[in-house]
Amino acid sequence: MACPRIIVYRSGHERIGEILQEMNCPGEIITARTLDEFREVVPSAEIIFGWKIPPHLFRKAHQLRWIQSMGAGVDDLVSNPYLPSTVIITRIVDQFGPPIAEFVFAELLAHVRKLDRLRQQQQDHLWEPFAVGTLRNQRIGIAGLGSIGQELVRKARAFDMVVYGLSSVPKPEMVDKAFSSAEWIPFVESLDYLVITLPVTEKTRGIVGEQVLRAMKPEALIINVGRGEVIDQKALVDALTTGQIAGAVLDVFETEPLPSGHILWDLPGVRISPHIAGPSVDEYVAQYFVTNVQRYINHEPLYGWVDRQRGY
Amino acid sequence: MACPRIIVYRSGHERIGEILQEMNCPGEIITARTLDEFREVVPSAEIIFGWKIPPHLFRKAHQLRWIQSMGAGVDDLVSNPYLPSTVIITRIVDQFGPPIAEFVFAELLAHVRKLDRLRQQQQDHLWEPFAVGTLRNQRIGIAGLGSIGQELVRKARAFDMVVYGLSSVPKPEMVDKAFSSAEWIPFVESLDYLVITLPVTEKTRGIVGEQVLRAMKPEALIINVGRGEVIDQKALVDALTTGQIAGAVLDVFETEPLPSGHILWDLPGVRISPHIAGPSVDEYVAQYFVTNVQRYINHEPLYGWVDRQRGY
Repeated sequence: MACPRIIVYRSGHERIGEILQEMNCPGEIITARTLDEFREVVPSAEIIFGWKIPPHLFRKAHQLRWIQSMGAGVDDLVSNPYLPSTVIITRIVDQFGPPIAEFVFAELLAHVRKLDRLRQQQQDHLWEPFAVGTLRNQRIGIAGLGSIGQELVRKARAFDMVVYGLSSVPKPEMVDKAFSSAEWIPFVESLDYLVITLPVTEKTRGIVGEQVLRAMKPEALIINVGRGEVIDQKALVDALTTGQIAGAVLDVFETEPLPSGHILWDLPGVRISPHIAGPSVDEYVAQYFVTNVQRYINHEPLYGWVDRQRGY
Repeated sequence: MACPRIIVYRSGHERIGEILQEMNCPGEIITARTLDEFREVVPSAEIIFGWKIPPHLFRKAHQLRWIQSMGAGVDDLVSNPYLPSTVIITRIVDQFGPPIAEFVFAELLAHVRKLDRLRQQQQDHLWEPFAVGTLRNQRIGIAGLGSIGQELVRKARAFDMVVYGLSSVPKPEMVDKAFSSAEWIPFVESLDYLVITLPVTEKTRGIVGEQVLRAMKPEALIINVGRGEVIDQKALVDALTTGQIAGAVLDVFETEPLPSGHILWDLPGVRISPHIAGPSVDEYVAQYFVTNVQRYINHEPLYGWVDRQRGY
């Protein structure tokens, strides 16, 4: 088999190409440093290893056989009309569970232990003991039981939480109570925490909307580490403003970056994070890709293969 | 057996007496609302259920047979010359593990995920992704492997940390590497996090001093949820000021409340908490005590029995 030509592009991560060389990645590796450079080399690419490439730039990728995303979400690729169905799409899976779970538990524990109040008291040199909450016996609902959801279940067990799970096919062996994607209302009704790890697909877009939010407890907290579009953002703002739910920890948004004038920045009970729950560490994704290139050359099935119908 | 007279005293927690009644605690329960009231009734007490009672007030406790502390630390009782060795001292054990472990992991995760920076960026409406750390494969050393230490080990496992432990008798079955209390230097040398859960005794007072601090890595963080006196506070301030270690999360201090002019409040890398890592929830301790009273009446061994020689 001829040595495949691999185009690497990710803004601000130009060193990934060098890392691939150091890892002896097979193939001819070309790093595009800008979108203009990408446009120039894309016609000769057999493989693209990239992140956040404007969809129309694939129009001239006539040699392309496989694109490996540097992240877990591939909604932009799945919906790209310039990627014929013969082009394989793969994404990073099984890498994001631990860091995303750390982010979720950092925020959950900061919430119950009132770390923000603690910091304020320190700033004021104020010694004022106060009552704190606990995660023990609290009910956490995890929407999406893939590799991220699984890691969340594991951590929740270590904190003695009651774990509910929602997935397209219910997984009663994994959680204390399992729900299908047709059972959102009974799923959320009694939750203290709802964690969303879902990708955006035709089925999940806006699924957490007025109805679901109205079914939740007023003390409940929503945490979104999946995709912003899974939540109807306007309905969320309404629910937070009217006290239908107590708060939201948001790492993902309908529009990113979140515009600096957006109401969510200042809404009480809201915690904003700039899409860093699951960091895509260069060495991580490079290693993942190198393994996949070897499998590609050996005609073995690729890791993280995306089913375009399903959307992830 | 005659119905024992029980005196209950804890400033600010006067409802504990009522809670005991609601739980049908056997015995004649007398709540002292002030230290003056305590002084008046103490001569008739067979049992005292209390917290932070000035030592000299026990001088006239001639009928006293048992004192149950409402907390885990009993150094004030063990060293009290007015409590003859025939008086049984018991403390709360096995109640503080989960909440203290939640506090420790709240602070550890806030540290690696840079929650303070995240909050500042939100306040500034600033969308600026940044690199974060992880607890995975980080080395945590737990000094003291009692019920609190055990719970810390369990949580650390769920975050895939490497766990070192120090205890008077090493417990290699519990941790990845076990040290005795004679091995502080090799114990701390390679740690990323040192968590102190130790009581203060003749052996532990000031044990974390200049020598131990000098042996630590400059990136290391100390977390103290045991007793303030276990750390030589002056040596700690020096180590933090000269960059021998990176930071400290302190819930306990040599003097409590920490005086409002103390340098620790403003030292970079220091997080102050007003002795609330292990909340002594009224219902918790009341339930614990009721069980112990039943055992007392039945002449069964009491939970949390304190060995005065050992000091806890």
